[in-house]
Amino acid sequence: MRRKRQSWVGSASGLALALGLITAAPAVADEALNQALQNPNNWPSYGRTQANTRFSPLKQINDQNVGQLKLAYAFQLGALRSNEATPIVIGDTLYVSSSSGPRSVYALDAKTGKIRWQYQPVIAEDVDPFVCCDLDSRGVAYADSKILFGTLDAHLIALDAKTGKPVWNTVVVDYKGGMAITSPPTIVKNLAVIGYAGGEYGARGALQAYDLKTGKQVWKTYTIPGPGEPGNDTWKGDSWKHGGGAAWQVGSYDPQTNTVFYGTSNPGPWNAAVRSTGTSDYGQLTNLYTSSTLALDGDTGKIKWALQSTPAEAWDYDGVNELVLADITIDGKKTPVMMKADRDGFFFVANRDTGKLISAKPFVPVNWAKSYDIAKARPIEDPAKRPHMDAKTTDICPSWMGGKNWQPMSFNPETGLVYVTTNNMCQDMQTAEVTYRRGSFYLGNDFSVNPGHGDHLGQLLALDPATQKPAWTMNLPLPWNGGTMTTAGNLVFFGDINGIFHALDAKTGKPLWQMNVGSGMGAGPMTFSVDGKQYVAILTGRAESPPAFMGEVGKKIMAATPEGGTLFVFTL
Amino acid sequence: MRRKRQSWVGSASGLALALGLITAAPAVADEALNQALQNPNNWPSYGRTQANTRFSPLKQINDQNVGQLKLAYAFQLGALRSNEATPIVIGDTLYVSSSSGPRSVYALDAKTGKIRWQYQPVIAEDVDPFVCCDLDSRGVAYADSKILFGTLDAHLIALDAKTGKPVWNTVVVDYKGGMAITSPPTIVKNLAVIGYAGGEYGARGALQAYDLKTGKQVWKTYTIPGPGEPGNDTWKGDSWKHGGGAAWQVGSYDPQTNTVFYGTSNPGPWNAAVRSTGTSDYGQLTNLYTSSTLALDGDTGKIKWALQSTPAEAWDYDGVNELVLADITIDGKKTPVMMKADRDGFFFVANRDTGKLISAKPFVPVNWAKSYDIAKARPIEDPAKRPHMDAKTTDICPSWMGGKNWQPMSFNPETGLVYVTTNNMCQDMQTAEVTYRRGSFYLGNDFSVNPGHGDHLGQLLALDPATQKPAWTMNLPLPWNGGTMTTAGNLVFFGDINGIFHALDAKTGKPLWQMNVGSGMGAGPMTFSVDGKQYVAILTGRAESPPAFMGEVGKKIMAATPEGGTLFVFTL
Repeated sequence: MRRKRQSWVGSASGLALALGLITAAPAVADEALNQALQNPNNWPSYGRTQANTRFSPLKQINDQNVGQLKLAYAFQLGALRSNEATPIVIGDTLYVSSSSGPRSVYALDAKTGKIRWQYQPVIAEDVDPFVCCDLDSRGVAYADSKILFGTLDAHLIALDAKTGKPVWNTVVVDYKGGMAITSPPTIVKNLAVIGYAGGEYGARGALQAYDLKTGKQVWKTYTIPGPGEPGNDTWKGDSWKHGGGAAWQVGSYDPQTNTVFYGTSNPGPWNAAVRSTGTSDYGQLTNLYTSSTLALDGDTGKIKWALQSTPAEAWDYDGVNELVLADITIDGKKTPVMMKADRDGFFFVANRDTGKLISAKPFVPVNWAKSYDIAKARPIEDPAKRPHMDAKTTDICPSWMGGKNWQPMSFNPETGLVYVTTNNMCQDMQTAEVTYRRGSFYLGNDFSVNPGHGDHLGQLLALDPATQKPAWTMNLPLPWNGGTMTTAGNLVFFGDINGIFHALDAKTGKPLWQMNVGSGMGAGPMTFSVDGKQYVAILTGRAESPPAFMGEVGKKIMAATPEGGTLFVFTL
Repeated sequence: MRRKRQSWVGSASGLALALGLITAAPAVADEALNQALQNPNNWPSYGRTQANTRFSPLKQINDQNVGQLKLAYAFQLGALRSNEATPIVIGDTLYVSSSSGPRSVYALDAKTGKIRWQYQPVIAEDVDPFVCCDLDSRGVAYADSKILFGTLDAHLIALDAKTGKPVWNTVVVDYKGGMAITSPPTIVKNLAVIGYAGGEYGARGALQAYDLKTGKQVWKTYTIPGPGEPGNDTWKGDSWKHGGGAAWQVGSYDPQTNTVFYGTSNPGPWNAAVRSTGTSDYGQLTNLYTSSTLALDGDTGKIKWALQSTPAEAWDYDGVNELVLADITIDGKKTPVMMKADRDGFFFVANRDTGKLISAKPFVPVNWAKSYDIAKARPIEDPAKRPHMDAKTTDICPSWMGGKNWQPMSFNPETGLVYVTTNNMCQDMQTAEVTYRRGSFYLGNDFSVNPGHGDHLGQLLALDPATQKPAWTMNLPLPWNGGTMTTAGNLVFFGDINGIFHALDAKTGKPLWQMNVGSGMGAGPMTFSVDGKQYVAILTGRAESPPAFMGEVGKKIMAATPEGGTLFVFTL
């Protein structure tokens, strides 16, 4: 019999169990965050709970009335360029962070948008060349009555949630190595766990845990094992030192097993010959634990298990995409899973307690691998699609944009569906010589990205993770669309790169409402309720830097809307 | 008997006559603009018509239903900093320009916000130090099926209105002298008339007219007479050469008399002793035609008449505020007037055909002058409030922010009221030595700006221009609020510097609707109708540079909202 789990959604707990929502153990969780999680009106974390389902039990706004949504207020963040934050709401305060320009954290009256406080960290002036892929922020975390966030120059800062006054400010890593923090930390009892970017700069990834009270480091786990540690022998010579595996996106946390989950980035450099024997076959140098999912013990950071989605990765299939934790029924059996729509084009479902792979199927056109061997948890690679130095390898699918990129998916326990915005793009690649230089790009790869095959470049996909079958799809004219959010009101919300914010019927995909908000979206929407009134919020502001690497399609993205930086909050 | 005037509002022409709206002579006007003006659904010019009333005859949205306004769409301009444009609408296309960052002109589907075209001029990279008071744009003009606009590096550019392709591009003046263009041109039959900024750089102001077809200059009139011309003798020595009088804001045009109206800026330098005998008394060196209103012949640029609102100006009472043209009943007699809420704190009403001053009363607390001598058209100055070099002159009211600044007022012929957002601020000043250096600030004045006396710093004022009596007021916590717009639906719209967009009952001032749009507003709202549906639009994006000169109040302005750059379009 499956062990009993206490609900993360408080007053909806009976419902939550019935729905297969996973549950918290308040005795060990941070008390402030746990209290916030008990209230279904809140959205206290990037993915609402740290299970990252992005599901809200609220249903005042639902499939019957969503067509009447109207603007409650807007808030302009004073920053353009890739505004990627999911706001969080605790009680009647909304917290949101802006991208660069300069980056700020704002606390707003969640009902009116009036500023309660604003905090603007001092960021190193020369930070730009050390940030790979845009000056962005995916938001803040809440715990211990503090607001926690990372900076582009790789500080982790804790503010008093009431006043915005800084409580502590810790250097996580030296940004001059090409390391930046763009995602909020994961709260693990009395700790804030954070990784950093740098896979394109030859960083060696790590996860680091800080005491919420003091900001002192409690543990640090490199994602790439050092000499003498199991897995270090999956690297050629000293290549592990600059091997990437950066954990730069959001993590997930299962309080029941006290496990932190993080994806890790592509290995460095992109030229796999520098670090690998150049194939993902067993017994080869597969560069652990890059392009992987790691499950770590929350107290110690010890790696409990790892799944490497793209062994000996050679295509920039960065493995950081968020891990969505849920208990779903597979073959008639309630199973504690983690789900990942990987950039390599496979949708992975694994038992999150054991790390055992359950299923892995392409959710976009894939040709770098012919299929996935579930028993071995390893792709069956097509050697013809591996880049090398002698000639260009053409039409590799998906492209480095990934079948899905960082834009977060959601899972609705009532429909049993995952909602993913996908990219149908392919790429040509040829590797090149490359030498590590601290603070410089470490790629060794000439690439171009091209439209994928078929009639669309982007898609909203509603996928049944138990069967790996699509329930419905909505084609989109461009790739690189925004994350999704889903509610007990039978709704899915997402914003596209053309600046249209959509609400759809979660069961059928029927479009129910849309609004042109005038700049493309990457961020995921969120919802909350204050004084008995439900609101839906979306931060807008299209990507600035990534489209420059997307060829002709990138030009279409840049022409579709200008950059922006406005939070829109809607209500009935 | 008053000569008959043909209506500028087409189908509402009978009404227009009854309401005292002034009227166009289509035979001589630009045909494309004239046709656009015939349709009450359009907003074809900065102030709707070039009379700059900012009055729309539309009333589908009215005092009964304005509370139901909801967002139709938003459009983000990809630029922060002082977005000051009033969009224009011709048919189903909305044209809007952004502030810097870089500045762009957009044509949108007026119903949906979808981009039809975008044009981004190449601006000199070193333009910043030559622009006094923010990198802004007040919008574009429409004529001859072209969209016309000025650039920060002082070009006038004409685009094909359908395609956005450039037709011609003319250098108006060398920006390196500190001259910039921030306002749209005035259309005068087959000509585009434009001035430029530079009063703080020792520019010598001018108005220049360009052929709409070719961009060739047709006439040029300096606002400061040269040697041998009447008025040159109002300047000390050669001081006229760098005497300011820049016409940088929007002009007005009366097609019936073929007269162009422009305000001119403060003289340069601010230290009046350099250029004047230092008093506004008759027979003194009053520095014609600075801080004045000029009426020019549309065909030749010849000055028909001038009214100098602040003679021998010494307080930075820039005289550029827009001239609102209307036919109003004064003492029982329909009178063709021009109205100006001057920075010097006096509200001027003059016969626009003759230049004869009708009335001039303070509309904010004023102490630099005791009153205004109407017969002499000259202030009765308080000598104690004139800045000098020996000691600080304190508590001069109003401040350089003006009783009103550039943010446009509106006139509603149905209520007979003018709606002005006013500033209640005072200043201390002490003059200093100054030497002209091309491209550098030319001030000679140490100043500080302070809150005014009384219980408010800003106000929305509904003023009867016939009696110079307020009908109602609405106090605002900060100065520097946005321009106004008024409609036949008995409504006044304006945005404040705290980011709240307001609709009020035009007769009574009763607040009827408001929306927090998340960044302060300076721009005036506008309204239009497409396919039988009325829309109200406001461009948001609070001032970036001016608050830095506003002391503690400026800090409050900057803390009130972040910068922004979003167009909001509302409908029922």
